[in-house]
Amino acid sequence: MIMNGSSLPQVPSLQRAAARLSRLPGIGPRTAERIAFHLLRIPREEVLSLAHSLREVIEKVRTCSICCTLTEEDPCAICSDSNRDGSTICVVQDCQDVQAIERTRTFSGQYHVLGGVLSPMNGVGPDELNIAGLLKRLEGVNEVILATNPTVEGEATAIYLGRLLKDKGIQVSKMARGLPMGGNMEFIDEVTLGEALKGRQHI
Amino acid sequence: MIMNGSSLPQVPSLQRAAARLSRLPGIGPRTAERIAFHLLRIPREEVLSLAHSLREVIEKVRTCSICCTLTEEDPCAICSDSNRDGSTICVVQDCQDVQAIERTRTFSGQYHVLGGVLSPMNGVGPDELNIAGLLKRLEGVNEVILATNPTVEGEATAIYLGRLLKDKGIQVSKMARGLPMGGNMEFIDEVTLGEALKGRQHI
Repeated sequence: MIMNGSSLPQVPSLQRAAARLSRLPGIGPRTAERIAFHLLRIPREEVLSLAHSLREVIEKVRTCSICCTLTEEDPCAICSDSNRDGSTICVVQDCQDVQAIERTRTFSGQYHVLGGVLSPMNGVGPDELNIAGLLKRLEGVNEVILATNPTVEGEATAIYLGRLLKDKGIQVSKMARGLPMGGNMEFIDEVTLGEALKGRQHI
Repeated sequence: MIMNGSSLPQVPSLQRAAARLSRLPGIGPRTAERIAFHLLRIPREEVLSLAHSLREVIEKVRTCSICCTLTEEDPCAICSDSNRDGSTICVVQDCQDVQAIERTRTFSGQYHVLGGVLSPMNGVGPDELNIAGLLKRLEGVNEVILATNPTVEGEATAIYLGRLLKDKGIQVSKMARGLPMGGNMEFIDEVTLGEALKGRQHI
């Protein structure tokens, strides 16, 4: 069967909306067309609030001048919370990781968002990450926990930062490597198993 | 492994945008979050034109008062084209079907969009479709081609309209049933094969 191309009517505004939607991640041309049609079927107010929401994101969201996480208030809620322990900083790659650690409810220190990892292949060196801001925050800090992702680039970034911080006399740690909770030994990769064995905990 | 929930930071405008995006068809909560983050990375102007496009769709797109297809001008480009043959009307379910037939470049008549098919189970009776508008257009019309989808509901709608139109002395036809071009006999369903056999063309 010969497949049809776009099924969008020759309506310029509908085609423009579909074209712009299809540039968003995870939206193919067909989904973009479906959404464009969908806009005509839902209440007017819903389309207006969606359009408003998109504008609101770029107008309101900024990065915290202290920890570089995304926020609407500067400094962010965590940086400005005096109940949190300012002597421990957890360094993460992205602001999503802040949320992931917050959900554990086991950390009461501060965060620092690098905004990525060292990746020479992609032209990301130390100057492209928020490292200078981290070094400026070290007064009164006892420990820095390096919580970059357990990937080659994440580990390399942690090693780089670890050296930098130890030179300044800061205690440096990284997240434990081991078996993920609920995981099945049989299906866990050998690197993780190796790390879990090496870091075994006496009970 | 216990999966994390939303990885979206506690930024109200970002969360609102993601929530509204996830109500669109084909966009799950994860894709909605990715898009919300993506908005912060692309140029400001792109977000503004996307938001503008969404509003433009509901502000500019309307249905043609003659054939009920989607259009920005009323009557639509096809209905107002005097070079087209007004004595033949092709009846389709949705405005996307107009585009599909236009792409064949084999039809130069007019269209009429029903806006759906009869479906008593879903509460769609003749009054819910643009049938009254079709009956008003019949002056000077010789032939009506029923091009509803070859489904149970599409066929039922065609039978209903066929009776209605024949009573008014209009010649009624439907799209030929048969083998799709490029199809493989082995994989074509038996109903289509049966129709192709019944409608065999002498050569």
